[in-house]
Amino acid sequence: MKKENSAPTMKDVAREAGVALGTVSKVVNGLPVGDSYKTRVEDAIRKLNYQVNSYAQGLKADRTYTVALLIPNTIDPFYASLTHYINTALMKRKYRMLLCATDFDPRQEQEYVRMAQHNRVDGIIGLTYNPELIVDENIPFVAIDRSMGPKIPCVACDNFFGGQLAAEKLADLGCKNVAFLRSGSPLVNEPNKRKAGFETGCLSRGLAYEMKLLNDGDSYEEFERFLSEHISDGKLAFDGIFCVTDRLAYLILHSLRKLHQRVPEDVQLIGFDGIRAFGSIDYHCSTIVQPVPEMAEMCVDLLLRENMMAKPPLVCLPVTYAYGGTTLEPLT
Amino acid sequence: MKKENSAPTMKDVAREAGVALGTVSKVVNGLPVGDSYKTRVEDAIRKLNYQVNSYAQGLKADRTYTVALLIPNTIDPFYASLTHYINTALMKRKYRMLLCATDFDPRQEQEYVRMAQHNRVDGIIGLTYNPELIVDENIPFVAIDRSMGPKIPCVACDNFFGGQLAAEKLADLGCKNVAFLRSGSPLVNEPNKRKAGFETGCLSRGLAYEMKLLNDGDSYEEFERFLSEHISDGKLAFDGIFCVTDRLAYLILHSLRKLHQRVPEDVQLIGFDGIRAFGSIDYHCSTIVQPVPEMAEMCVDLLLRENMMAKPPLVCLPVTYAYGGTTLEPLT
Repeated sequence: MKKENSAPTMKDVAREAGVALGTVSKVVNGLPVGDSYKTRVEDAIRKLNYQVNSYAQGLKADRTYTVALLIPNTIDPFYASLTHYINTALMKRKYRMLLCATDFDPRQEQEYVRMAQHNRVDGIIGLTYNPELIVDENIPFVAIDRSMGPKIPCVACDNFFGGQLAAEKLADLGCKNVAFLRSGSPLVNEPNKRKAGFETGCLSRGLAYEMKLLNDGDSYEEFERFLSEHISDGKLAFDGIFCVTDRLAYLILHSLRKLHQRVPEDVQLIGFDGIRAFGSIDYHCSTIVQPVPEMAEMCVDLLLRENMMAKPPLVCLPVTYAYGGTTLEPLT
Repeated sequence: MKKENSAPTMKDVAREAGVALGTVSKVVNGLPVGDSYKTRVEDAIRKLNYQVNSYAQGLKADRTYTVALLIPNTIDPFYASLTHYINTALMKRKYRMLLCATDFDPRQEQEYVRMAQHNRVDGIIGLTYNPELIVDENIPFVAIDRSMGPKIPCVACDNFFGGQLAAEKLADLGCKNVAFLRSGSPLVNEPNKRKAGFETGCLSRGLAYEMKLLNDGDSYEEFERFLSEHISDGKLAFDGIFCVTDRLAYLILHSLRKLHQRVPEDVQLIGFDGIRAFGSIDYHCSTIVQPVPEMAEMCVDLLLRENMMAKPPLVCLPVTYAYGGTTLEPLT
């Protein structure tokens, strides 16, 4: 019989139920077994007070050394870069990566979560804005950019400080009247903290600011209208603009040119993400750079960590400012 | 006993050797079995003249519905886009994709080939310039951009015609003296046909042309020197330049600006690949566009095709020209 004071193991459950260890594993993982076996295993689990949290521990021998990455696509350069560095971090640890480009399809996402539950992957790293995705807290899951529950670690850059840094940089560069332009998901998520950080920075540095906030799916023309409405006598009311992404900054740069505003002479522009042309050449704009290699390492490290208690609910990694031609050049 | 005139199956081998079917499968796939079993199976294979080519046929039940993609990285936008569309094509067919970002590491590439040999993936799609990669002709493999043997299908865009199209476009746009700039792998591969296609186009349209060919690892400054040497009295000897990739065209565009040459007024520039900023906005330059979604579909289609005879050794898919600001604007 098992020793006093130690938690019951899967082996204890098998002995108590009078079934093979593999049968217990199947029941625990929701795989099909005969009804009578299922009842016996479930009764034994109740009797021994076998804890769900120790399942993962007991299943170590079943490792597939495979981790699934849920990501909308690999065409967007931020997603493509995350994919690359997560892949590299996994391969360094002799793990393989199943890539699931979801295009935000909730069925695809849920299917991969099911695979993890059935032990066909050891864990999931997921960047998903799908509020309906159901993740069992007992399967290893690390979320990127959106918290999915207190027991699921979330990795992001320090979005709040990134917003604050953008405001402080614009202040340092001489701006007085600034704007924040944002297009994105209306869900609560980490990138949405850029707005609050920017406001904090503006307030602390005495910058006057306005905001134009759009949701995914809203027409981009709303931004052009907003800018046009803030031009009088050919002069824009803002001398600095912070855009929620480099992608938006790129589009705004073109709109400003059409409106005969010179960047950076008339108005300085800062984006967010740190995207480079062709993945490695120039920044598209001056930008707050996300530490993608470090975020990838952290995701993999948290996912494969065996001690659940050592998994913090939110890890924010430091951002940096990079000059990319759309602000006044730093003095050298 | 088995019928006359039909090829021996794995079942026949198992019966002849007096072992279980799974044992034959293991031997065929190089998995460990006891020495005496191995000898019996190998003897039976020889006696029945069981053909290696029918192994794949016999193993259908062992399908993993998993395909490995070998690709240098997902940071380069061409690779990132290929990865996305191959993933989409596989998911449409209920297959999953193991991503192996190799950074051209031959050990990683060979390891994934071994996985396929051991039936842990159903096949491999690979973009590799590694001349030492050994691929067993009996495992499903589709190569991208480099032929790896007569029995391994290779998918590419029509690189030769792409080069020719670039020359013809420059001629249509009024150029008389053109140059081809190339940096890449010295290996025989499909993209290297761009040069021969360009020469053919120049000859047929009576364009004078010069070439500057560098290999990966050569200093980019060689191109700047080449351009400088072809400037006299502030005027460049070329009125059109074809670059082997959009990435190179992007760099050359900046070099030409430093040399006070206006693009497209003084010199028109065409790249190759069809890369857009942020994966979906503007082309970085006027370009020959690779049909990436179609190439991805073709790779998956060829890989999963069961009839080996229907797998052509080389499939070239059609390219198109796209205006991207570095040539004279088309009349509309």
